[in-house]
Amino acid sequence: MADTHPKPTLEGEPDSKRAKIGGEDQTYTLVLLRHGESEWNLANRFTGWVDVPLSETGEAEARAAGAMLVDSGLTFDVAYTSVLRRAITTLWRSLEALDLCWIPVHHSWRLNERHYGALQGLNKIETAEKHGADQVHIWRRSYDVPPPPLADDSPMLPANDRRYADVDPADLPRSECLKDTAERFLPYWESDIVPAIKSGKRVLVAAHGNSLRALVKHLDDIAEDVIPGVNIPTGVPLVYKLDANMRPIAQEGSVGPLSGVYLGDAAAVAAKVEATKNQSKAK
Amino acid sequence: MADTHPKPTLEGEPDSKRAKIGGEDQTYTLVLLRHGESEWNLANRFTGWVDVPLSETGEAEARAAGAMLVDSGLTFDVAYTSVLRRAITTLWRSLEALDLCWIPVHHSWRLNERHYGALQGLNKIETAEKHGADQVHIWRRSYDVPPPPLADDSPMLPANDRRYADVDPADLPRSECLKDTAERFLPYWESDIVPAIKSGKRVLVAAHGNSLRALVKHLDDIAEDVIPGVNIPTGVPLVYKLDANMRPIAQEGSVGPLSGVYLGDAAAVAAKVEATKNQSKAK
Repeated sequence: MADTHPKPTLEGEPDSKRAKIGGEDQTYTLVLLRHGESEWNLANRFTGWVDVPLSETGEAEARAAGAMLVDSGLTFDVAYTSVLRRAITTLWRSLEALDLCWIPVHHSWRLNERHYGALQGLNKIETAEKHGADQVHIWRRSYDVPPPPLADDSPMLPANDRRYADVDPADLPRSECLKDTAERFLPYWESDIVPAIKSGKRVLVAAHGNSLRALVKHLDDIAEDVIPGVNIPTGVPLVYKLDANMRPIAQEGSVGPLSGVYLGDAAAVAAKVEATKNQSKAK
Repeated sequence: MADTHPKPTLEGEPDSKRAKIGGEDQTYTLVLLRHGESEWNLANRFTGWVDVPLSETGEAEARAAGAMLVDSGLTFDVAYTSVLRRAITTLWRSLEALDLCWIPVHHSWRLNERHYGALQGLNKIETAEKHGADQVHIWRRSYDVPPPPLADDSPMLPANDRRYADVDPADLPRSECLKDTAERFLPYWESDIVPAIKSGKRVLVAAHGNSLRALVKHLDDIAEDVIPGVNIPTGVPLVYKLDANMRPIAQEGSVGPLSGVYLGDAAAVAAKVEATKNQSKAK
């Protein structure tokens, strides 16, 4: 049966009460979660693939996300996350709150944040002062202009990090635009996450601002010139309803170009989106 | 090359410096970690498969275990744990300390604590007063006498818990003696953990008092009448060196029938073992 109810309620019910899997009118729930503030978000530095822990605020956001998920009645069978600890620990805090520490968690570099190339480690305001706010805005908010790549001798090269030892070196970026992030994330979405959803598993994806941008662009077919301006707030679960073809189903309470609905207080979410937007502006 | 050095030092080195995999004289490092104190350890209740969180002390033990692992220079490529949150969160705290949140973590019910049947939830001292200290001692410390099984209508039946939905119902226990625990754990050891070790992966196993007893009994070929008296302390990493046939290699600093060596201060470990031993004595 079609489920267009704005608030997800069935997911906490025993499996026998859930909709039968596989029919034409099957609907699925998918929850996306952007990690809480990291220590470098706090210091306003470009982070990308640098493996920075959550700040104290980020820890609190992760716990709050877990509490929102508990309140929603949602539950999960499997989770997907990146190989970066700010996303992984955000996921872990949520799973602890949900009493779901035991579900399988799959890590993939393909869910990582956009690689910020040679900007990684630099303060956003200083970078704006050096390269000009317009150039930084282009690097941050264009769809297909990557920042300068890491140098050959950079200690930040993914090839020097053993977590990427099993990845084809040709796949490892030295810098990415959002388009690049989408192009390395979407194959994993199709190969691993979509089959899990279609098999009836309730999926939680804990990832990053730009890997989640890539996903919502794909789901909601958002234009290339629009998606860079879509800001997904940190630590607020975003609930999608998908049909049998993985197309989003309209829900009451969705915002802007996204069909997904944020859990929690709408005004608090709007304030968080605004805060994200202003993060890079040179003072 | 054979490595009989008592303190593991090579594991933190780049892969290129590690011993070549596959030779006759190949040695492997395996680290076992029993979870920290749970809220029911604290309340002195039989826990078994009941999914109780760590107590505050247990959280501190888990963080201390992580710090000991960091100090040791050990690192890991993969971790195995149960589907019970006290073991999983102990592992997570250690992985956070080690900056290894990204390594694959495999969960299996076969690593669970021994199922304590109808004793689950009961206070150990009250149980001793009711059934007699001798009977409780037999249930706790014999190798092959299981406690009374869960009743047909028990809410604690594993068949009622969706984390066991994919397990053959015939495999799900209603009570276990240590022998039963060994018999359901060892197939997983052989099918999943041994191949990972032999492939050169550095393995961390975070589990429970009795699943780890089953493993050290197997590794060190400990007699059935001896193993019930072997107490593995909570939150202290136990480092085994294994040869190419998965037989333990003698190490300086090993204690009693175990070839493994505990990290940290020997007197503190001995005090913890003693505390575990006395836990069930009726006052």
